[in-house]
Amino acid sequence: MFQSFTEAARPDQGPPRLAALRRAMAGAGLAGWLVPRADAHQGEYVAACDDRLAWLTGFTGSAGFCAALTDVAGVFVDGRYRVQVRAQVDTGHFTPVNWPDTRLGPWLKEHLPEGGAVGFDPWLYTPEQIDTLTEALSGSGIRLVPLDNLIDAIWPDRPAPPQGAITPWPDTLAGASHMDKRVNLAASLRAAGQKSAVITLTDSIAWLLNIRGRDIPRNPVAQGFAIVHDAGHTTLFTDPAKLDAAARSHLGEAVTIAPPDAFEAALAVLIGPVRLDRANVPLRVVQVLEAANVAHQWGTDPCILPKARKTPAEIAATRKAHLRDGAAMCEFLAWFDNQPPGTLTEIDVVRQLENCRAATGQLIDISFDTIAGSGPNGALPHYRVSEASNRTLIEGDLLVLDSGAQYLDGTTDITRTLPVGPPGADERAAFTRVLQGMIAISRLRFPRGLAGRDLDAIARYPLWLADQDYAHGTGHGVGVHLCVHEGPQRLSRLSDVPLEPGMILSNEPGYYREGAFGIRIENLIVVTALDPLPGGDAATQFGFETLTYTPIDTRLIAPELLTKPERDWLETYHTACRDKIGPLLSAPARLWLDKVTQTS
Amino acid sequence: MFQSFTEAARPDQGPPRLAALRRAMAGAGLAGWLVPRADAHQGEYVAACDDRLAWLTGFTGSAGFCAALTDVAGVFVDGRYRVQVRAQVDTGHFTPVNWPDTRLGPWLKEHLPEGGAVGFDPWLYTPEQIDTLTEALSGSGIRLVPLDNLIDAIWPDRPAPPQGAITPWPDTLAGASHMDKRVNLAASLRAAGQKSAVITLTDSIAWLLNIRGRDIPRNPVAQGFAIVHDAGHTTLFTDPAKLDAAARSHLGEAVTIAPPDAFEAALAVLIGPVRLDRANVPLRVVQVLEAANVAHQWGTDPCILPKARKTPAEIAATRKAHLRDGAAMCEFLAWFDNQPPGTLTEIDVVRQLENCRAATGQLIDISFDTIAGSGPNGALPHYRVSEASNRTLIEGDLLVLDSGAQYLDGTTDITRTLPVGPPGADERAAFTRVLQGMIAISRLRFPRGLAGRDLDAIARYPLWLADQDYAHGTGHGVGVHLCVHEGPQRLSRLSDVPLEPGMILSNEPGYYREGAFGIRIENLIVVTALDPLPGGDAATQFGFETLTYTPIDTRLIAPELLTKPERDWLETYHTACRDKIGPLLSAPARLWLDKVTQTS
Repeated sequence: MFQSFTEAARPDQGPPRLAALRRAMAGAGLAGWLVPRADAHQGEYVAACDDRLAWLTGFTGSAGFCAALTDVAGVFVDGRYRVQVRAQVDTGHFTPVNWPDTRLGPWLKEHLPEGGAVGFDPWLYTPEQIDTLTEALSGSGIRLVPLDNLIDAIWPDRPAPPQGAITPWPDTLAGASHMDKRVNLAASLRAAGQKSAVITLTDSIAWLLNIRGRDIPRNPVAQGFAIVHDAGHTTLFTDPAKLDAAARSHLGEAVTIAPPDAFEAALAVLIGPVRLDRANVPLRVVQVLEAANVAHQWGTDPCILPKARKTPAEIAATRKAHLRDGAAMCEFLAWFDNQPPGTLTEIDVVRQLENCRAATGQLIDISFDTIAGSGPNGALPHYRVSEASNRTLIEGDLLVLDSGAQYLDGTTDITRTLPVGPPGADERAAFTRVLQGMIAISRLRFPRGLAGRDLDAIARYPLWLADQDYAHGTGHGVGVHLCVHEGPQRLSRLSDVPLEPGMILSNEPGYYREGAFGIRIENLIVVTALDPLPGGDAATQFGFETLTYTPIDTRLIAPELLTKPERDWLETYHTACRDKIGPLLSAPARLWLDKVTQTS
Repeated sequence: MFQSFTEAARPDQGPPRLAALRRAMAGAGLAGWLVPRADAHQGEYVAACDDRLAWLTGFTGSAGFCAALTDVAGVFVDGRYRVQVRAQVDTGHFTPVNWPDTRLGPWLKEHLPEGGAVGFDPWLYTPEQIDTLTEALSGSGIRLVPLDNLIDAIWPDRPAPPQGAITPWPDTLAGASHMDKRVNLAASLRAAGQKSAVITLTDSIAWLLNIRGRDIPRNPVAQGFAIVHDAGHTTLFTDPAKLDAAARSHLGEAVTIAPPDAFEAALAVLIGPVRLDRANVPLRVVQVLEAANVAHQWGTDPCILPKARKTPAEIAATRKAHLRDGAAMCEFLAWFDNQPPGTLTEIDVVRQLENCRAATGQLIDISFDTIAGSGPNGALPHYRVSEASNRTLIEGDLLVLDSGAQYLDGTTDITRTLPVGPPGADERAAFTRVLQGMIAISRLRFPRGLAGRDLDAIARYPLWLADQDYAHGTGHGVGVHLCVHEGPQRLSRLSDVPLEPGMILSNEPGYYREGAFGIRIENLIVVTALDPLPGGDAATQFGFETLTYTPIDTRLIAPELLTKPERDWLETYHTACRDKIGPLLSAPARLWLDKVTQTS
């Protein structure tokens, strides 16, 4: 099992660690110290050695930070983690703070009215974050002081940095060699008059060099930094022991491997201007360059957009991964349908689903911890089951099952909502509206140049008509055997990145009734340039190809609410599920699939 | 008739005037002079004395500007006016420029490579406009020089400023006295620490003081400026001869009337800080304040948002105006339906429609020049018929008829698309999709806090599915016996102003097939806070109340494309038309209305 169900939190360990931190703060003349969740690569998941926030506070959520002052230690978490943080930290010593309702700047001003020095590790903060915080603190007398990490100094048994093997990712899957990618990137640097670019995002490096790693759970990346020069030569700063001969041969002579502790010295001897992305480069990189008088220019990490536009080879690869994953889902669903209400727990569901994926023989990891939320737990969009929260599925429940896999040829992310026994009328009506929104996005054709914010409302319209909605975006970007949350594109009111062919997105409207039930339906889709329709006159119209094939539970549909085009879409989708997934199934699962995809 | 059909343009008059302008430029040491369409109030319509662009170039469109240099004179117009500008200006002397594809800054840099001084009238440009242009010119050596208007100096028979009577607008219609409005505005100034606000938009002044004017065609406003002080006292700078005793009594002692030429002196003695809106105040106001060392602060014109949130009294008033206008429309449509193909021209249509509105006895003005575009003319969204363009309506045509009225109690704006003889299949399919988008907005319920850009796609979705679209926003704000185009709210990808109850919008999706036909369907709607639905859980849901009641031509609908909720909406709408408008009609029109609103 990749997933564990234990609560890692030990609330009792926090207070002595906080006391040790405060002694270190006093020694450094600091009134406060900032502990973010992020590592130097700003990823969603971190290695054990970088999980300083959990070590200090006990809080294990995927986002948050602690501001430890002499008299108070605020643990800032967003709406997903309001309940969890109270269970995981000793609230006698740590104070949960609702972020972003309360932001760090005003909170510091309130708790440090006389001003004072607040320290932070410049490897863990970006220039953008520090600029924003500095502006929020202006006039307060509070100073931000970059320093070596105080937590590391007081963490006696801190784990060693991860040593996961780096392996080549086949060019046949990538559709472009790392040489091609480096050459293109170098040309864009020359066009901008820049001599090099510093890349600090682990998935950007993995994409650029066609490598994958094993340093970070759920994400097949290696910790490291890279410097790409304007002739294409690249230095990868990562523990050389991670690369075997095959990996070194894959990277070739134009990619130099150097140990991480050579990174700063290499920065200091660069010829400028150096391109940095102020949204994700560690502030430390800027400090080193400035101390060495190396000019830098702000720009976007040059891997982000090309990485988001998948090649035809990547799309072909991930299509195959999605069919394999769809078959594993169908094996699971066929089994699940035979289990009577009252016999399964959420953990049973997670185990069985992971077993079905593992049975493909090709499961490298799950792409995130499976969300299996039954009844009221389903109303928490980011619920993660633990031994403590585990619940038996009983008649009348809905089960929100959101999961995904890492295969060598693709990353999947699928949500299905399943009834346990006959569903109620409210559940069916809301499910049907969620499905209508999901179908509306699936069927969409739209003019080129539009961004997620221009489209998001289309998924919500059926719910809005019933005074219902969901408090998350409609979709996020997804990688190909990379991170399951990948930028820059999103289907969200907050995203103004124009959608382009090859971008993979999730399409996952939902509905959550607090204390009662949750609903979410999610397929992955890829932006595609469409052939023009007769009678149309849009110059270039884009649309979405569906990648995910797993039936949608028709017992939850109120068919009278669907329009003819919606019914047609569903029938076509179920026929495609039968045709594409059926041949990959065991005999009993195939019988099940034929039954549930019967057309009216 | 308010509307005229003559082409005001005399292309032959432009060149000698341009020559005179160039002599004046030379005398002032200028390499160029900028001639905007706008007056000092940045309105969409201008008085004859301010129509400098038309006087100089011959171009009479509602937006555009001329940049006259020594060797070239660019006339910048947007997509609506590409054809018209070529018909109206002497292209041997004036060069049409496609704006915004080509912007003024780059164009000046291209045509003045050595730099030089370009003059402009600071009454006619805002700080925002000049800042943007200055930035675009940075590094070019081109200087922008504010000067007294050169056109006025060479325009021998320039008309006198308009002298339209100012009349009180009844408090019973406004729902708030001008004292209440001034007191509220003054309180907001005090809260911001500002001593006064300068108001230069004519509709802001009309709203604030509950007055209406007759200076500008189509817009019932008076030219003038106002200074509102932080205790509520207001000085209105406008020709005192425009006010009779009733108007003076209405304004009372807390509103001082001063002639326009006292405005600059009054600015110079203000105590700062003074609130100015950099998006619409004339740069000249800033110059005068700065010369007198009076501090100013940028802020939004404090009338704009309260004006946009109509009071219940204003909504009640405009509902009545819309029923009256709907009756006039039905009288017209009943007549139109009896005219055989081949017997009417577009001008006949405009005349008859204005006659029907005039027959109400309450028509003060039309709210804009009626758009009556038949056949290929309908494909020009902003077509205005002239003697030259006039076209006979023939069998198979669609007629796009977009018109509105100014009544004392409201401003209307309605578009109906009418078939001349049996319509074609493409026309019916496209009309039905436009109708679906228009119905989708009409039925919409949405969470509070959303802006036009969050909703615009909902109107386009049915068209997008057929690779069709329209190159304009879905809707604009509308006043109550004020301007038919009123900010700040819009239903548009470009608008991030949150919609609030009381805001009136147009809902007007369309479709335009170049050289063939046009389609647009437009109702006015008002944002309304809705009672919660059972089973819903949105905290506050907004929706739209429809103001416009006039049947939609069912001969253009392909009913098989409509969903059940769409058919239900249409049936309910037509029943409401019959119930609300029927009692106001002549006997033949009522028979017609009963016939065309028969439910299936």
